[in-house]
Amino acid sequence: MKKIALLGATGSIGTQTLDVIRTHRDEFSLVSMSVGQNIDKTREILAEFQPRILSVSKKEDYEVLKDEFLNITIVYGEEGLIEVATCSEADVVVTAVMGSVGLFPTIEAIRARKTIALANKETLVTAGHLVMKEAQEYGVSILPVDSEHSAIYQCLQGENMKEINRLIITASGGSFRDKTRQELEGVTVEEALNHPNWSMGAKITIDSATMMNKGLEVIEAHWLFNMPYEKIDVLLHKQSIIHSMVEFHDRSVMAQLGTPDMRVPIQYALTYPNRMVLPSTPLNLAEIGTLDFAKMDFERYRCLSFAFEAGKTGGTMPTVLNAANEQAVALFLEGKISFLQIEDVIEKALNWHTVQQNPCLQTIKEVDLETRSYVLSLIS
Amino acid sequence: MKKIALLGATGSIGTQTLDVIRTHRDEFSLVSMSVGQNIDKTREILAEFQPRILSVSKKEDYEVLKDEFLNITIVYGEEGLIEVATCSEADVVVTAVMGSVGLFPTIEAIRARKTIALANKETLVTAGHLVMKEAQEYGVSILPVDSEHSAIYQCLQGENMKEINRLIITASGGSFRDKTRQELEGVTVEEALNHPNWSMGAKITIDSATMMNKGLEVIEAHWLFNMPYEKIDVLLHKQSIIHSMVEFHDRSVMAQLGTPDMRVPIQYALTYPNRMVLPSTPLNLAEIGTLDFAKMDFERYRCLSFAFEAGKTGGTMPTVLNAANEQAVALFLEGKISFLQIEDVIEKALNWHTVQQNPCLQTIKEVDLETRSYVLSLIS
Repeated sequence: MKKIALLGATGSIGTQTLDVIRTHRDEFSLVSMSVGQNIDKTREILAEFQPRILSVSKKEDYEVLKDEFLNITIVYGEEGLIEVATCSEADVVVTAVMGSVGLFPTIEAIRARKTIALANKETLVTAGHLVMKEAQEYGVSILPVDSEHSAIYQCLQGENMKEINRLIITASGGSFRDKTRQELEGVTVEEALNHPNWSMGAKITIDSATMMNKGLEVIEAHWLFNMPYEKIDVLLHKQSIIHSMVEFHDRSVMAQLGTPDMRVPIQYALTYPNRMVLPSTPLNLAEIGTLDFAKMDFERYRCLSFAFEAGKTGGTMPTVLNAANEQAVALFLEGKISFLQIEDVIEKALNWHTVQQNPCLQTIKEVDLETRSYVLSLIS
Repeated sequence: MKKIALLGATGSIGTQTLDVIRTHRDEFSLVSMSVGQNIDKTREILAEFQPRILSVSKKEDYEVLKDEFLNITIVYGEEGLIEVATCSEADVVVTAVMGSVGLFPTIEAIRARKTIALANKETLVTAGHLVMKEAQEYGVSILPVDSEHSAIYQCLQGENMKEINRLIITASGGSFRDKTRQELEGVTVEEALNHPNWSMGAKITIDSATMMNKGLEVIEAHWLFNMPYEKIDVLLHKQSIIHSMVEFHDRSVMAQLGTPDMRVPIQYALTYPNRMVLPSTPLNLAEIGTLDFAKMDFERYRCLSFAFEAGKTGGTMPTVLNAANEQAVALFLEGKISFLQIEDVIEKALNWHTVQQNPCLQTIKEVDLETRSYVLSLIS
């Protein structure tokens, strides 16, 4: 029985993680979880999975729930997240919270020697050098949950890391892949949230439309697989069937494929190095008929260029990239800036910031906050 | 330094194996080889690679060459093949001869505890149960050289054989993939020899056009991967970029891709479990643009149905399938039967034969010869 701590239980990845646990009740149990503000859904999950610890975002919700669920330890806020992540029984922590808030609980989970099933890419984007160093120091495995990184991880099984030529990360192109830059000017939040292949949370869906999601994935892959940016390619593949690939020295390319279903990489991270039956739709390539590929257009998708540049610059620059993006996407979702202004805001933040190399956690936290303030100052 | 015995040095796979050895002179050396009747090419290979033993097909060639190359041991015929395959220094035997003639030297090489790089699929088709049993008994690895089986082998690295759902073998469709059965009636030998993706020997190119090649590969996969026929699918994929795939219990599909280049699987079999740099053309999916897939039509490609049926029947039936096919293809290449008569002849032979289960090597040899005689009797 593998005991799971789940950060972000009511989100898209959280819900699908619970579905995997539900499918394999004799293999997995939920021992602790954190949620945001969806308290109705939280009540249902508590009733069904009976974790020992629950963390909520707001103190008000804590006050209500602590009298309602007397046999569950209820905590809240940033400290609550850490309590969930370091829960003594937990073997593995699924980090499915959104944004850089995932960083501190992930670090604490590593220090508590928990295996990390990483669905929160912002953690590696903002502090990859620290997270990977801690993981190495504590002998902790970081298993990717993102479908692209899980694909690469699967392609690397039984292989020698020294024999890799390049990683090839596929990109669907997001909601607006068929639009020109000119057509992007008037797009609405609603249109942006309509992803053709994957059903995901709002922030990541917008990140897919701007291609920043792929940029964050490039930085995540850099850290997870210790791969220089020059050896990471991005390939447009609109059907999202090939989830990513690895080319080796002999020009042999390994790929992982499947119908888009996040439960596959989630379950793989939980069962690794084994696989278990999953009632997912089998891949039927004859029915799909064709898989399409196209060169990535870095002019069309400026956020991807920003990410490569910030990644290569290193230091605090990816922290700025990520914080500016989080703030800009929030502003777009609130209707305060247009879709193309997301890029402008990020570009300005990157130009404004003076990079500091090898930042500590405290510096990262400060730069993250400063960047968010800077972005807000741009529209006030 | 890995020492290589090469059966079939002047053929297509043989030539490409020599090219791999030439690329990595400090890693590989050729210690023994067999050839057919191309003596001019043999002289060139001897001069360049200086093996210790050479086997030729015909005694006449032996008589000529033994006085010409005094420091090379020259042998001939079936015994010569065995001498090459069991050459004391050899670490690995590449079996690149065509047809069931590869069986006996492969068995002897296994008994001499040589690693087998298997490019001769007829060996497993005709006597898979015996070959795999011997390999297990002597603790010998059989590494596939066929691009499809090499792909599957690569997909299985780091995986658990018990977690496989199905193997998916891809098929280009061969020279006549766009022709209807009616259009196949008048096709010429020359047209049949014009394969769209792979440059190969005559027999295998005809086998590709009839789809018997894929049928033989299904039986080969059954033995190599210990997989029931119900778990082996064949998928039409005209570009030959995905060389084959494996679906696991969790519906994750692993695939191996690359530009069609037989040197990749040949080298992989020679360097396994490592990979080495190979100056092959990198895969450029953006340039290729689309990969197409279609359901296999078992009515259109009757030979594939014959192979599945013969495989499922087992015993001597695959031996009959293979021998009838070898003889029929030879007759087609000699202009003695038409393209569609290849299928008719094989079907008649399968109906004529009374299956014997669990045949020994001697029985297989007899059934092979009887089948060839039967096929010849059909056209006399």
